[in-house]
Amino acid sequence: MAKTKKLCAFLLRFLAFGATLSAAIVMATSRETTTVFNVSYEAKYSNTPAFKFFFIANAIGSVYSLIVLLLPLWGELRRFVMVLDVIVTMLLTSGVSAALAIAYVGKKGNSHAGWLPICGQVTDFCDHVTGALIAGFAGVIIYLLVLLCQSIHTVFNPLLVLKT
Amino acid sequence: MAKTKKLCAFLLRFLAFGATLSAAIVMATSRETTTVFNVSYEAKYSNTPAFKFFFIANAIGSVYSLIVLLLPLWGELRRFVMVLDVIVTMLLTSGVSAALAIAYVGKKGNSHAGWLPICGQVTDFCDHVTGALIAGFAGVIIYLLVLLCQSIHTVFNPLLVLKT
Repeated sequence: MAKTKKLCAFLLRFLAFGATLSAAIVMATSRETTTVFNVSYEAKYSNTPAFKFFFIANAIGSVYSLIVLLLPLWGELRRFVMVLDVIVTMLLTSGVSAALAIAYVGKKGNSHAGWLPICGQVTDFCDHVTGALIAGFAGVIIYLLVLLCQSIHTVFNPLLVLKT
Repeated sequence: MAKTKKLCAFLLRFLAFGATLSAAIVMATSRETTTVFNVSYEAKYSNTPAFKFFFIANAIGSVYSLIVLLLPLWGELRRFVMVLDVIVTMLLTSGVSAALAIAYVGKKGNSHAGWLPICGQVTDFCDHVTGALIAGFAGVIIYLLVLLCQSIHTVFNPLLVLKT
């Protein structure tokens, strides 16, 4: 039972590592050069602060997931990791939400503010960002599962915490 | 000791209720009519999906905080609330991040995407949104404290969970 639980936790963290790493890589490689009215224009993620924040959040998330995967977790360290999990989950949620809000404006525009959609001009860039957002969203869901498993586990079986 | 802890938890939840309620109200009342080139134009929060999401997230957060304040928490309910706390914190984080990303474009614009800043035309609206974001941010910090207190409390004192 304890082995299954450990395997499950390992698997979740491994998936979280994969999701956050791909989100960071796909976002970092999203760039497209297009020509509008004879003016060459390069769309890249680093032009938008929200996309940069998304990249940084997912880079931190993947490094953190890898460290937690490699470290043996017991005692004080295990407790510290539970607190860090909450913070990393919030960081990832924040990154995905900010990037999603900007990507929505890029896709649909906002006629009230006079912001035109740009996805018609830079289709590849938008597809790349969409991919990164999907991976980032998967990372958030996996971390939510990690958090929920932990609170359910520690709250429902408070005595098990010291044993496992 | 248990009484101090309970008072502290009550105070945190009360502050969270205040912060999320003010964030929702300030966002909902943010509207300004301005005239640009003889065309009357009304800026309001409901024109921007991210601001609507922020309002909904904070409205849900304040109703939830109020319910938790009023209900006596023990046994199963207490455990359920701990799981809901994680979800509400993520919802609030998500709302603030999305609104902040859009507010940043409203303030600074994004020259690469051709989105012009609008805060010069609708100063009052922008001030209102800034106020709402500050209150929303306070709500997130308070919920983060609630979560961290809970994980530190349950993880460091697993035996106390059943007693209090």
